[in-house]
Amino acid sequence: MTSRLAILAGGGDLPLRLAAAAAAQQRDVLTLPIEGAADLARYRHLDASPVNITQVARLLATLRDGRCEEIVMAGTIDRPDFSKLKPDWRGLTLLPKALAAARKGDDALLRMLIDFLEGEGFRVLGLETVAAELLAPEGVLGRRSPGEDDRADIARGSAVLDALGSLDIGQAVVVRAGRVLGIEAAEGTDALLARIADLFGAEAGGVLVKLPKRDQERRIDLPTVGPQTIAGAARAGLSGIAVAAGASVIVDRAHTVEAADVAGLFLIGIGDGQG
Amino acid sequence: MTSRLAILAGGGDLPLRLAAAAAAQQRDVLTLPIEGAADLARYRHLDASPVNITQVARLLATLRDGRCEEIVMAGTIDRPDFSKLKPDWRGLTLLPKALAAARKGDDALLRMLIDFLEGEGFRVLGLETVAAELLAPEGVLGRRSPGEDDRADIARGSAVLDALGSLDIGQAVVVRAGRVLGIEAAEGTDALLARIADLFGAEAGGVLVKLPKRDQERRIDLPTVGPQTIAGAARAGLSGIAVAAGASVIVDRAHTVEAADVAGLFLIGIGDGQG
Repeated sequence: MTSRLAILAGGGDLPLRLAAAAAAQQRDVLTLPIEGAADLARYRHLDASPVNITQVARLLATLRDGRCEEIVMAGTIDRPDFSKLKPDWRGLTLLPKALAAARKGDDALLRMLIDFLEGEGFRVLGLETVAAELLAPEGVLGRRSPGEDDRADIARGSAVLDALGSLDIGQAVVVRAGRVLGIEAAEGTDALLARIADLFGAEAGGVLVKLPKRDQERRIDLPTVGPQTIAGAARAGLSGIAVAAGASVIVDRAHTVEAADVAGLFLIGIGDGQG
Repeated sequence: MTSRLAILAGGGDLPLRLAAAAAAQQRDVLTLPIEGAADLARYRHLDASPVNITQVARLLATLRDGRCEEIVMAGTIDRPDFSKLKPDWRGLTLLPKALAAARKGDDALLRMLIDFLEGEGFRVLGLETVAAELLAPEGVLGRRSPGEDDRADIARGSAVLDALGSLDIGQAVVVRAGRVLGIEAAEGTDALLARIADLFGAEAGGVLVKLPKRDQERRIDLPTVGPQTIAGAARAGLSGIAVAAGASVIVDRAHTVEAADVAGLFLIGIGDGQG
């Protein structure tokens, strides 16, 4: 009887993709969709035990009853409204520490949760150790490479996202010949690309730069690109897409890279300080 | 024979509005639409002498032949491509100084131009001395005032624009309950508001914050709001609009304020450090 992998699942697609990737590796998986964050209906066809993240004694019991020794966290989790929580006794004993950590920032809160789980004997794994194939590697992924102008546009886009990162907004930007054509706020990357296609698509060139927020701790979710992103970028007349190596998810990499090749776009994973 | 006011006119509506405001004050105006920046066709019905900004001897002759003693500059002027300029002899003698100034930034280049014109005996006036009524005053302009939540959204919007200002992008942002719904890049404020109406309009509240770029020197043009902005903000379900007092243009103020009152929106001019 081998141990199971627990996926502590926030909102969005990423935990579901992770579950599928782990299942494809013949790993025995128990998903723990977090109430208030994950869409529980999407976990019905999986082996799933919904959890209240503040009912810590029950969470530990669920993990132990499920024979889980390893845990990976994925998906979006908003900072909780501490006034509305109904922690169990174990959660209550942790609450002062959690509040203190939360004041230091979301990163500290996440770090505290990981330390607590490891103190209880679990191993908390990074996404990349379970499904490295979901993350963008560094370097050019398809047949095309960015040119000199593209690299300048990538650098400018990175600077814009860096300026916005400390405000916890803006994960994507479109730059063409040094001009910032669009910045994503709450509308999503597909809407950003559709707008560029409508307003500026007639001209050719430019890049989509999509990076994690500097203050990414609030969401364990990562920026994601897939075949749909390639199609949107192609309609907008862009030359290619740059994502953060090791910190962005490429959905269905084979198909995404193929779509980029067919559309004549480059797709590149850039490292810190690059671009 | 009184002296005439010269309007050195870049692109956009502002120089034309300024000419109309000066004419309404019975001032004798000569417009000097700058080739490559102003749309010359729009100056056909005015007393206008198109100028090449690098043919400095001719520019001075035009000003003197036109009996102009006072000059006001308005409108957008892109940084010139120095390799394509065809300066006259006077322009040539100024070019090394202009290139040195340009390396320090657009502000230095503009300052140099103003100093040069004043050294030649002209008075260079600010927009506000000719048509203060075009600029937003400080404080609430219509019947409604921003509430506490609106003021928090204005502060967040200002912080976002401040972060982007040093990158010379982003003059407008929409914030609702602390969430940044949209950031304007190259699409314009009307397109930004239309997007908010489409994607998030069903919910009510939020503010449009529209401020000059911190690095506003590249454009003498100023952020502008008018009845169309009010209509767009109303369709997006916003509570109101905040602009920079003394550094934003309100088109046709009486009608704009009336439109805001009818739509139930606030319109406020905020000072530096406010909001």
